[in-house]
Amino acid sequence: MEKLTVTLGERSYPITIASGLFNDPASFWPLKAGEQVMLVTNETLAPLYLATVRRTLEQAGVHVDQVILPDGEKYKSLPVMDSVFTALLKKPHGRDTTLVALGGGVIGDLTGFAAACYQRGVRFIQVPTTLLSQVDSSVGGKTAVNHPLGKNMIGAFWQPAAVVIDLDCLKTLPRRELSSGLAEVIKYGIILDAPFLGWLEEHIDALLALEPKAMAYCIRRCCELKADVVAADERETGMRALLNLGHTFGHAIETEMGYGNWLHGEAVAAGMVMAARTAQRLGQFSEADVQRIIALLKRAELPVHGPESMAPEAYLPHMMRDKKVIAGELRLVLPLAAGKSEVRAGVARDVVLSAIADCQRA
Amino acid sequence: MEKLTVTLGERSYPITIASGLFNDPASFWPLKAGEQVMLVTNETLAPLYLATVRRTLEQAGVHVDQVILPDGEKYKSLPVMDSVFTALLKKPHGRDTTLVALGGGVIGDLTGFAAACYQRGVRFIQVPTTLLSQVDSSVGGKTAVNHPLGKNMIGAFWQPAAVVIDLDCLKTLPRRELSSGLAEVIKYGIILDAPFLGWLEEHIDALLALEPKAMAYCIRRCCELKADVVAADERETGMRALLNLGHTFGHAIETEMGYGNWLHGEAVAAGMVMAARTAQRLGQFSEADVQRIIALLKRAELPVHGPESMAPEAYLPHMMRDKKVIAGELRLVLPLAAGKSEVRAGVARDVVLSAIADCQRA
Ligand SMILES: NC(=O)c1ccc[n+]([C@@H]2O[C@H](COP(=O)([O-])OP(=O)(O)OC[C@H]3O[C@@H](n4cnc5c(N)ncnc54)[C@H](O)[C@@H]3O)[C@@H](O)[C@H]2O)c1
Ligand SMILES: NC(=O)c1ccc[n+]([C@@H]2O[C@H](COP(=O)([O-])OP(=O)(O)OC[C@H]3O[C@@H](n4cnc5c(N)ncnc54)[C@H](O)[C@@H]3O)[C@@H](O)[C@H]2O)c1
Ligand SMILES: [Zn+2]
Ligand SMILES: [Zn+2]
Repeated sequence: MEKLTVTLGERSYPITIASGLFNDPASFWPLKAGEQVMLVTNETLAPLYLATVRRTLEQAGVHVDQVILPDGEKYKSLPVMDSVFTALLKKPHGRDTTLVALGGGVIGDLTGFAAACYQRGVRFIQVPTTLLSQVDSSVGGKTAVNHPLGKNMIGAFWQPAAVVIDLDCLKTLPRRELSSGLAEVIKYGIILDAPFLGWLEEHIDALLALEPKAMAYCIRRCCELKADVVAADERETGMRALLNLGHTFGHAIETEMGYGNWLHGEAVAAGMVMAARTAQRLGQFSEADVQRIIALLKRAELPVHGPESMAPEAYLPHMMRDKKVIAGELRLVLPLAAGKSEVRAGVARDVVLSAIADCQRA
Repeated sequence: MEKLTVTLGERSYPITIASGLFNDPASFWPLKAGEQVMLVTNETLAPLYLATVRRTLEQAGVHVDQVILPDGEKYKSLPVMDSVFTALLKKPHGRDTTLVALGGGVIGDLTGFAAACYQRGVRFIQVPTTLLSQVDSSVGGKTAVNHPLGKNMIGAFWQPAAVVIDLDCLKTLPRRELSSGLAEVIKYGIILDAPFLGWLEEHIDALLALEPKAMAYCIRRCCELKADVVAADERETGMRALLNLGHTFGHAIETEMGYGNWLHGEAVAAGMVMAARTAQRLGQFSEADVQRIIALLKRAELPVHGPESMAPEAYLPHMMRDKKVIAGELRLVLPLAAGKSEVRAGVARDVVLSAIADCQRA
């Protein structure tokens, strides 16, 4: 079992990583006998894991209600979140309830935001079931739903009380989703940790094969990196923005293509190549390093081009809605070298357009 | 001009109370030239004050967009809040925008919550135009929208950057709304400040006549009391709950009767009498004090009975959804004496029912 802590004063919380956690009531600390829980999950995960988690919680004396949402990024929306409130109010659940998010980043982001808003804030626990949510979205307290005009535009900073990562559930995860998670894993290497990037180049096949030791180490390292960044900058006023490498481009792809057609990690993968090309055009990143990133993403079975149907100009209006835009000026996360990156303002529009064009399929 | 500060460390902010503030760019500090603002108001207030406020801000070099919502408590909802996000994203407004709430508690609560959620939190300024919002809802950072199953059930603690109270705008406020605001004013006297309760008994007619000196003092004193409570207990884990005197009963009335049919202050007025009757039945509040409250509320042209059509039993399911319910147990704010009150758990169900029945019109 791997255990680490996200250090945020009063709001600190543990991340536990191991096999078999869903069967162990101790995993779900700080839930206690007599407490009330609303388990939030989706139609795909319910038949796989809901009964197990429910039974484990009930054995611990917790009163469990559940709400099962439709599956998909397009349901990470205000109206679907409202159905969680309806479920909570029908019982009713009080301010002392705990929401448990059993699912990937979509369920985690929506449930976390629901917890932030329900009665002006209740406790919640992240139980991430995709690689992406285990290494990224479940840690750090960024919660949100999408708006038709932009991804993650409505949300809150709201920290979970615990993150429970059961490695076993990756076995049922579709291969494409596994790759999508690896995009965020590779991101950590590029922006923060050159040795980890090297380790990934050696172990990418082991990860795709779900080799348990490699996977446990990989998730732990990503959570550590994320926890450090979050502890330093909880509300993303500074270095936390580095975690957005590839995301400004990626969100444009996701929004333009319709949520869910491109997976988040796929869009981020293409976006990271665009960011690398932007950095290269600015003379701060070598062609060899661009190629190194492209090669690793390809081995992880990820796209390294934008969607064929999307012209470079189509990216810009979406990018101007990015949360890093200040006073109408775009700010981009750009790599400087393996393991080093910066937030850069004032990149000329045509440099961005050319970099995107570089990543159009030839 | 009266000026005071809500002391909350980094989140401290000023409240300014005076005539003519809408015409003075300095009122809207910390807004600065070059900054972007979304003015949120409703169809009633737009023809009265929007042009003035807009002009003043534009003279100060601020870029102003506006969104005009329909008027009414039933529009304090998630779908209407979503239309504010749409307006923000269409322009688009970035994380550095400021929302300005020009209106009563409905506009203030919704706009504040929209500010809490937009891009995970942007700045907002309260410009309250009803007595109720000037003395209560604009101060303290409680923001929310309603859910069909319960009032203010979805929200956030999100402090404004400033509160701008222009006394002149009370001149256009309907008389019934003025009385509704006086319910919250009287509440402060009952729960916290016996001398102020005495002052109100002397000046209630002056307040109904909008006598400027009396009104300025009254608003200032209420804001002071509220600011003190909020500074002591920002997230309502303790004494801030006292501000809910009459509200557990009142929210039941509002929800059961349909939002907006009973004004918030009217429901709170009847609710305060129910709370006083509950306290009296528990032997902790005298008949003379109950009568004193009833007399003052009547002089303020407020109801002192519940709705005729609403049986005592109809209150309970609503009351059990109150945010003060912990582990399924109701907690009520009850007066102990003029200027003294407590939060009390474990009040027997039939005491509550009898107290409500005491307040049915005979
Ligand atoms: N909050 C943050 O900091 C943050 C960071 C990164 C991404 N995100 C968000 O995360 C979301 C993407 O998350 P995701 O990639 O986990 O997508 P997801 O939640 O949609 O899950 C992907 C798919 O896999 C299914 N699934 C999940 N776990 C499974 C399992 N164990 N077995 C079988 N199927 C399983 C889901 O039902 C879904 O169909 C996006 O909305 C993105 O914006 C948030
Ligand atoms: N956040 C808090 O701490 C808090 C505290 C108390 C009440 N509230 C909330 O406040 C809301 C009630 O606020 P309210 O009583 O201000 O109601 P309101 O906002 O609905 O305003 C009442 C009516 O007066 C009109 N109006 C407002 N100002 C006017 C003016 N100057 N001239 C003419 N017409 C004017 C409005 O358009 C509306 O029709 C409720 O939703 C309640 O839950 C919140
Ligand atoms: Zn991501
Ligand atoms: Zn009130």
